[in-house]
Amino acid sequence: MQLLRNNNLAIKWEDGKLEILDQILLPVISKYVAVKGVEDGWKVINKMQVRGAPAIAIVGCLSLAVEIQPEVFTDKKSLRQEIEGKLNYLVSARPTAVNMKIAAEDLITLSNQLSKDDSVSPADMKERFLKAIDAMLEKDIADNKAIGRHGAQAILNNGAGDSLVRVLTHCNTGSLATAGYGTALGVIRTLHADKKLEQVYCTETRPYNQGARLTAYELVHEKMPATLICDDMVAALMKSRTISAVIVGADRVAANGDTANKIGTYQIAVVANYHSVPFYVAAPFTSIDFTIPNGDRIIIEERPEREMTHINDQRVAAAGIQCWNPAFDVTPAALITGIVTEKGVYSPEELKGLNVSEKLQD
Amino acid sequence: MQLLRNNNLAIKWEDGKLEILDQILLPVISKYVAVKGVEDGWKVINKMQVRGAPAIAIVGCLSLAVEIQPEVFTDKKSLRQEIEGKLNYLVSARPTAVNMKIAAEDLITLSNQLSKDDSVSPADMKERFLKAIDAMLEKDIADNKAIGRHGAQAILNNGAGDSLVRVLTHCNTGSLATAGYGTALGVIRTLHADKKLEQVYCTETRPYNQGARLTAYELVHEKMPATLICDDMVAALMKSRTISAVIVGADRVAANGDTANKIGTYQIAVVANYHSVPFYVAAPFTSIDFTIPNGDRIIIEERPEREMTHINDQRVAAAGIQCWNPAFDVTPAALITGIVTEKGVYSPEELKGLNVSEKLQD
Repeated sequence: MQLLRNNNLAIKWEDGKLEILDQILLPVISKYVAVKGVEDGWKVINKMQVRGAPAIAIVGCLSLAVEIQPEVFTDKKSLRQEIEGKLNYLVSARPTAVNMKIAAEDLITLSNQLSKDDSVSPADMKERFLKAIDAMLEKDIADNKAIGRHGAQAILNNGAGDSLVRVLTHCNTGSLATAGYGTALGVIRTLHADKKLEQVYCTETRPYNQGARLTAYELVHEKMPATLICDDMVAALMKSRTISAVIVGADRVAANGDTANKIGTYQIAVVANYHSVPFYVAAPFTSIDFTIPNGDRIIIEERPEREMTHINDQRVAAAGIQCWNPAFDVTPAALITGIVTEKGVYSPEELKGLNVSEKLQD
Repeated sequence: MQLLRNNNLAIKWEDGKLEILDQILLPVISKYVAVKGVEDGWKVINKMQVRGAPAIAIVGCLSLAVEIQPEVFTDKKSLRQEIEGKLNYLVSARPTAVNMKIAAEDLITLSNQLSKDDSVSPADMKERFLKAIDAMLEKDIADNKAIGRHGAQAILNNGAGDSLVRVLTHCNTGSLATAGYGTALGVIRTLHADKKLEQVYCTETRPYNQGARLTAYELVHEKMPATLICDDMVAALMKSRTISAVIVGADRVAANGDTANKIGTYQIAVVANYHSVPFYVAAPFTSIDFTIPNGDRIIIEERPEREMTHINDQRVAAAGIQCWNPAFDVTPAALITGIVTEKGVYSPEELKGLNVSEKLQD
């Protein structure tokens, strides 16, 4: 069978061979790690050599595809058992990464169905299972590209007739965190491909420096006109240069449009609002959780102090100082211009107006 | 003669002996360096073992006092020549540190006057000169304490009847940057001494980390209830906890109250305004430059990219990324609740209403 070929920066997948860019070594060293099966897949996920919920799910599932592809199955039961056991094992590598868990559940359901269907041979079952993994990869990229297209159009429409735009982003939402295109960074990628991007600014994103380490790495790799700023420079930037829009990702969007995302997002939204800069959130439609009415219910995880006091085992803050290290914050809907999904761009008001069938249709 | 005794964290001065805390080694190592004369004074200023414009001036002048004190002068001309030559040499250690230049000019003028006055003996001249240096040290501390008193009162009056206050500060304005008490940190010190401080939050202050390295160090040393946050967490902090006031320092205040200060200050002012948190600037009255009508004229220095891309020679940002690294920003008067000086607290409106004699009187 012909497998999909994926040759993006973070995940290289061709002819049943899988390699991932080791994100622990970034930005100092760019080194690919071969993932020769589920055991390797578990390790690269567990050691955070691959990160970002969509990317973890894709790499986990592809590592299973690598292992199954050369095998020959004479009965479907042994294939089903192998699939179920290995997917559950992969979920255990990062139990909080929800996308891997959902992908595993979907694939186990598929495997059970195929196993029960007497019209499916063992070879058919294997092929259809591998195709399902391919489809996941393909869908993530297709959805990201649609997000990129919708977001770029919204920013250009909102850009007061500017032929070129200057955008700001926070954290990493690029090919390193997804199957290969990115959400907020996918929008910026589309603007660049369309020759509409004058400059992209990315924040360092303290304390884990995803902006300085990962987003900056991707922007340099893609040869985009890019500038890194510290997190405390956003207001000065907006005062001294006209910024066309802010575009960020989302961990979760509530039914009213309130958005939980990497710490610092809310502050950028406040500063953008003060400077009348449009503020967009880019995320797959599935990130919208219609079961939570607003952001008040979202619990903010607090992370270890060491993330703030040290950089690579080197102490950067005074010994004995107490730290507050929330992992994310909630941006109220009132500060959000639009939520960019693969289905289109919704203002928080429009989101509230969606009917049930639109909400469930995916 | 009895010299003033100064036993603060950064500058120890007693019986003609001077020691300074080596700020390059902070926060990892707390080590004092003996300054045995002008040569040592030049070195610690030039190597930035002491920093902060007021602190540089004090250490420079005290290093001259250390050298002159044990000497016996039989003629005033040789004393005058030594003073002039060594002060000019000290200015050359950090030519941009304006306080050292002004202090040198004042002391050279005094030395010329004493030298010309026939009623003054060589021994008298030496004693009066050393007393003038002592007076500089004493005035800086007294002014800072007055700033502390006025600022603490303003914050408590504004605190909606709270018996305890929670304040946020940015960068380092403490005893490490001044003769020994601090401006904005002096206000916090006063609140703490008066048992009115529930919690002080300090920002990391990227890219040079003065908050994480120096302010946090002082707060731990003074045993204040203190918490470090990243620069992108200010809005999340103000949303989740009630902050009574922000208090920051100033590099220069324009006649209308616009204030130039460390990069990031303007952003905190925008965020404080959004959350209705009072925003105070603390600075000696001499920091107000009545010759510049507003902040538009203030040129923003841009610093080397390496400050952002590296921490202690370790690369933290992706190679090849371009950086924007402005050293400070300008907070518009409209976002400032009050400017706290040793003469009292002025709203930007009150500042504009000061008559010429009040402006010049110091």
